[in-house]
Amino acid sequence: MSRGSDGSVLLLSGGAGGARLAAGFADLLPADKLTIAVNTGDDFVHLGLPISPDVDSVVYWLAGILDEQRGWGRAGETWAFMEALTSLGGPSWFRLGDKDLAMHVERRRWLENGETLSEVTSRLSLALGITCPIVPMSDQPVATRLDTDEGLLDFQDYFVARQARPNVRNVLLEGLETAQPAPALVAALQDENLDTVIIGPSNPFVSIGPIRAVLDRAKLRPSCPVIAVSPLFGGKAVKGPTVAMMQTMIGEVSNAALARHYAGWIDALVIDAADARDEPSLEALGLKVLATPTLMSTASDRRRLAAEVLAFARNL
Amino acid sequence: MSRGSDGSVLLLSGGAGGARLAAGFADLLPADKLTIAVNTGDDFVHLGLPISPDVDSVVYWLAGILDEQRGWGRAGETWAFMEALTSLGGPSWFRLGDKDLAMHVERRRWLENGETLSEVTSRLSLALGITCPIVPMSDQPVATRLDTDEGLLDFQDYFVARQARPNVRNVLLEGLETAQPAPALVAALQDENLDTVIIGPSNPFVSIGPIRAVLDRAKLRPSCPVIAVSPLFGGKAVKGPTVAMMQTMIGEVSNAALARHYAGWIDALVIDAADARDEPSLEALGLKVLATPTLMSTASDRRRLAAEVLAFARNL
Repeated sequence: MSRGSDGSVLLLSGGAGGARLAAGFADLLPADKLTIAVNTGDDFVHLGLPISPDVDSVVYWLAGILDEQRGWGRAGETWAFMEALTSLGGPSWFRLGDKDLAMHVERRRWLENGETLSEVTSRLSLALGITCPIVPMSDQPVATRLDTDEGLLDFQDYFVARQARPNVRNVLLEGLETAQPAPALVAALQDENLDTVIIGPSNPFVSIGPIRAVLDRAKLRPSCPVIAVSPLFGGKAVKGPTVAMMQTMIGEVSNAALARHYAGWIDALVIDAADARDEPSLEALGLKVLATPTLMSTASDRRRLAAEVLAFARNL
Repeated sequence: MSRGSDGSVLLLSGGAGGARLAAGFADLLPADKLTIAVNTGDDFVHLGLPISPDVDSVVYWLAGILDEQRGWGRAGETWAFMEALTSLGGPSWFRLGDKDLAMHVERRRWLENGETLSEVTSRLSLALGITCPIVPMSDQPVATRLDTDEGLLDFQDYFVARQARPNVRNVLLEGLETAQPAPALVAALQDENLDTVIIGPSNPFVSIGPIRAVLDRAKLRPSCPVIAVSPLFGGKAVKGPTVAMMQTMIGEVSNAALARHYAGWIDALVIDAADARDEPSLEALGLKVLATPTLMSTASDRRRLAAEVLAFARNL
């Protein structure tokens, strides 16, 4: 296992914080030193189109076309389709921009043509000028379903239609038993030049959880250090259901609870500077800790954090 | 069979001239006195979406949202989807506007839901405020294929991708043998109040031909007078392959050739004022003839022509 500065990085990511950090790493590292494996548990079929929200967020971030203000979808997006659809009586709860729609239509076309989701993602990434491999966690569908106090909900029904309001008691992964990690994810993990696995600051349960579950089921474990970047900032998350889910799923919203949740999997944790006081208790759990500003509002924030995580990883 | 001024009208239409005349009739007649039966031979599946170009043209005309300048698609259309699709390497030969796309996505959703094309067309028409029934000729697919000097071509491949340049020797209708006329078309033809069937100024071979073939196969014949409106103006057509196809399919571009083509089916022919000299030869074929300006550039042209055809029909 190489530990030189030339080793490779595998980043596990969801669609929000992890995708921002992915953009930071893609700015820093050559394409052959970085693989980004992305959650597909949120994937679903809508209006006959296969939607991969987290994969698309990473793709749009790396292509430099994500709407940074909104945090999802394409910059300069227009909504003529959506308005026309609504006036025809079509469903409006999941918003598909005119440009974004092209991604799903093309994905559908190539999947129909017999390509795997990995192949389609490579193809569409390349068309957008992305050279770094973006790998869906699996080419087989694994659907995140949430056991909530309003019943069992599909992920998008919970996350978009109900705006993540129901309390989540458990996360189920439909299709997990037959899903394999995508070939490029297996290859990245088995690459002898792999230096570090980084778990992005994504939701531990619905973004990172499915990726970990797919790897666990395949009995694949990183043989290099694993560093998680905490999604918490002063005990809160930027947005999304991370805080609420930590509360209901593991009973506590803290970096220590996150560390226990990732126990046996991670060697180090990157926490926000505002949570620096957590450092001793995390070190007591046997973890290396880096406390640094982790909020990524600008491209420069993303690059700086990526660079610090990388330097931290290479000193482990 | 009623011949009072309260009788009903059935208009057979393609997507261009016939659709313009349909808009004229819809302006004149109450919704319960007019049925518009539309060719579906041009229908095809593109990017996984069921496209019904002629039906949509009639729908857009009657909803008052067709782009009159362009002659197809929606007014104020935008093309963000198309541009994004092209930049992803997707097919650009068939242009789908952002708003238009909503129609095909909704059509797909309801067809998938088990509705017939007739039911979906009613539903989408109603959503756009159209009360007059627009009826696809059949709920079963009938695909127009063209035997050309460049081989056997699908309709859109001939019409859009090759811009109607190949010489057409014959028109084949795939699926005709199992297609039934749509229930509302059968009902309109069997309605004892039906006064007149009007064949719109559409292409006789690829727009009207498929409707006639479906009716012929079902042994359905109008029991009221049938009036065709010629698509020729001074021996030429506004646009499209009508002239070229008359030349290669029936050897002559003239109202007399058109009358022979429709022989046994029509009782009267409406021709353009510029072709008034054709009147005696057409009357010699046993037809009643009305010569009047038939070019429909404005809403007022469309209403005037519809009113004249209607008055002519009621005096037959």
